[in-house]
Amino acid sequence: MKRIYMDHAGTTQPYSEVFKAMEPFFGERFGNPSSIHSFGREADKALDDARRTVADFLGVSAEELFFTSGGTESDNLALKGVAFANKGRHIITSSIEHHAVLRACEWLERQGFAITYLPVDKYGLVSPEELEKAIRNDTILVSIMHANNEIGTIEPIDEIGKICRRHGIYFHTDAVQTFGKIPIKMDNIDLLSVSSHKIHGPRGVGALFIRKGVKIDPLIHGGNQERGMRSGTENIAGIVGFAKAVELAKKNMKKDADRLTKLRDKLIKGILKMPDSWLNGHPVQRLPANAHFGFKYIEGEALVLHLDMKGIAASTGSACSSKELKPSHTLLAIGLKPEEAHGSLRLTLGKDNTEEDVDYVLSVLPGIVENLRKISPFKRENK
Amino acid sequence: MKRIYMDHAGTTQPYSEVFKAMEPFFGERFGNPSSIHSFGREADKALDDARRTVADFLGVSAEELFFTSGGTESDNLALKGVAFANKGRHIITSSIEHHAVLRACEWLERQGFAITYLPVDKYGLVSPEELEKAIRNDTILVSIMHANNEIGTIEPIDEIGKICRRHGIYFHTDAVQTFGKIPIKMDNIDLLSVSSHKIHGPRGVGALFIRKGVKIDPLIHGGNQERGMRSGTENIAGIVGFAKAVELAKKNMKKDADRLTKLRDKLIKGILKMPDSWLNGHPVQRLPANAHFGFKYIEGEALVLHLDMKGIAASTGSACSSKELKPSHTLLAIGLKPEEAHGSLRLTLGKDNTEEDVDYVLSVLPGIVENLRKISPFKRENK
Repeated sequence: MKRIYMDHAGTTQPYSEVFKAMEPFFGERFGNPSSIHSFGREADKALDDARRTVADFLGVSAEELFFTSGGTESDNLALKGVAFANKGRHIITSSIEHHAVLRACEWLERQGFAITYLPVDKYGLVSPEELEKAIRNDTILVSIMHANNEIGTIEPIDEIGKICRRHGIYFHTDAVQTFGKIPIKMDNIDLLSVSSHKIHGPRGVGALFIRKGVKIDPLIHGGNQERGMRSGTENIAGIVGFAKAVELAKKNMKKDADRLTKLRDKLIKGILKMPDSWLNGHPVQRLPANAHFGFKYIEGEALVLHLDMKGIAASTGSACSSKELKPSHTLLAIGLKPEEAHGSLRLTLGKDNTEEDVDYVLSVLPGIVENLRKISPFKRENK
Repeated sequence: MKRIYMDHAGTTQPYSEVFKAMEPFFGERFGNPSSIHSFGREADKALDDARRTVADFLGVSAEELFFTSGGTESDNLALKGVAFANKGRHIITSSIEHHAVLRACEWLERQGFAITYLPVDKYGLVSPEELEKAIRNDTILVSIMHANNEIGTIEPIDEIGKICRRHGIYFHTDAVQTFGKIPIKMDNIDLLSVSSHKIHGPRGVGALFIRKGVKIDPLIHGGNQERGMRSGTENIAGIVGFAKAVELAKKNMKKDADRLTKLRDKLIKGILKMPDSWLNGHPVQRLPANAHFGFKYIEGEALVLHLDMKGIAASTGSACSSKELKPSHTLLAIGLKPEEAHGSLRLTLGKDNTEEDVDYVLSVLPGIVENLRKISPFKRENK
């Protein structure tokens, strides 16, 4: 059976070029960049080159880029690092952030910090005006994601960044879903989290951009790797693979975004023809590859499992919390009722998806939804 | 030129079997274990199997094993996690711990915790009696490494663990240098840090054993991977490679330890024939593969660079801090003067080293040391 992967916001398959770039570092180029012998110096050179590639792509200085084990670590480093290094006790975030931000904030609350969780509108947009109103004398950090990982809404981060700058508050953005997918204007961003495995790089690698001058504590202390900001022997193979993925993203980003936007819009148009279905997230201010739907009277999990039996890999929302059976915090925040939030489907496109794939999804989905509705307890109760 | 690698305590080259085991996970088996579709379920199965392999090797339950990005993260998680989750404010460690432990402790001190740094004797041994005396009413954690990464001394951790148990205090040990090298008696250990890349596994992977019932906060919050203890999409390729390395360590450990001990002793015997040289660390209670020397009147860095020119990769001490020019904290703690600590050489053996390699080192080292001493400012000042 054909397998169609439409869960690219969850993770992606590494490019073959990425794997090829990594391979020597599992072999004879295995040196530790901290060693002063020739094995070490070779590794150190590879690390420098990779750092420059990623930094150049973002348009920042290599000294401002710190490799981590992934987007989640980057978010935790940004939030906890800034919280512990600065005097204020107040942080502003949104109610639809990734769990990496939300759970870190909840933990900081237990350490005595005050967190404001801003509401969003029905599209998932944070209001810059409300954000500005939430600023207090002791606010040290604002953390608003660039684009939501579930519904794909792109937040007005440049406007938010400007407000933060005006008030002398650090601005962090989780750009895991936009990095390598759409341009990022760095001007008003102080900290930015990115991940490798969402852009066809290896798992277990990410980075945090930290603007020069930002006061921040490390999260992981030790042998002073990453100029003391992130200790632990560097995962050179992973970092080199990440840099290769960035190189390819740079080359393909514009072309991919245009192509995927068209496929996405075809998918949206086709699916919205189905009765009792709707689009979650913003109609146009959304990620090129993200389509997120609600279906009345059914369970998203059942839908995903039935699609899987037809060879289609999809998701109900965030892969990171798909095993929790609680309704999505993002969907509740945009105003859905719990039963509406349960009937959700996220299709996120990627480089290998074709128009044929979209047609196939459009041909099998209505039948699955119809069958699930026939046996739906919600439907019986509601009608 | 032949390249002889004798820096295995710094990092190791992955086994070819490790790379082979990882390869499919960079390809079609790229799924995210949190996804409920078939790609995800396959990854989840691989994760379970790997966890069982590592846990079985340690003789612990799979539920007590948490994958991390490496030994440094494991140490930070153990120390900060226990510190923040428990009421006491006092931690006991030694003055020769890895920087991952020491720097984490220093950071905790800045957060208001009290840390006792126990001294060691001239061999680098912690005294269990002194440790017991240092225990206070508010002591929550003792962290003593299993074996020192620089001088190779093996600490009496079982005795220390028993004392901790008697006092109802958690005992953590950094076993990065012993895991897969010598047996570890787990009976009195509550938390144990291990790393993959020291045992011919990939970089960027490690684990923390956390005994059931230990109160500990996560260090990295998010999507609840690793049962909430370590969030972030799992690095499946890395974890699978780690498990393969553990499998091979299990098979080869005894045999390798016997063989390397013999090579090590030949190296020690040969080098100690050189004038003004001495062995650092314990003569017998030391890692099978570790030989660490002091040489009067020379700089360790110069020695390592000259050995490198002869094709021998060695280290002055810990790779993790070899770029700092401060004398090693471990060597100062065993009573060396700063100028003695500067003249150090660590040779750490591994699976590919042969008796020929040892002979080669013994044939070139005396000449290098002699030449360096001729131009040594220390020698001129001291003689």
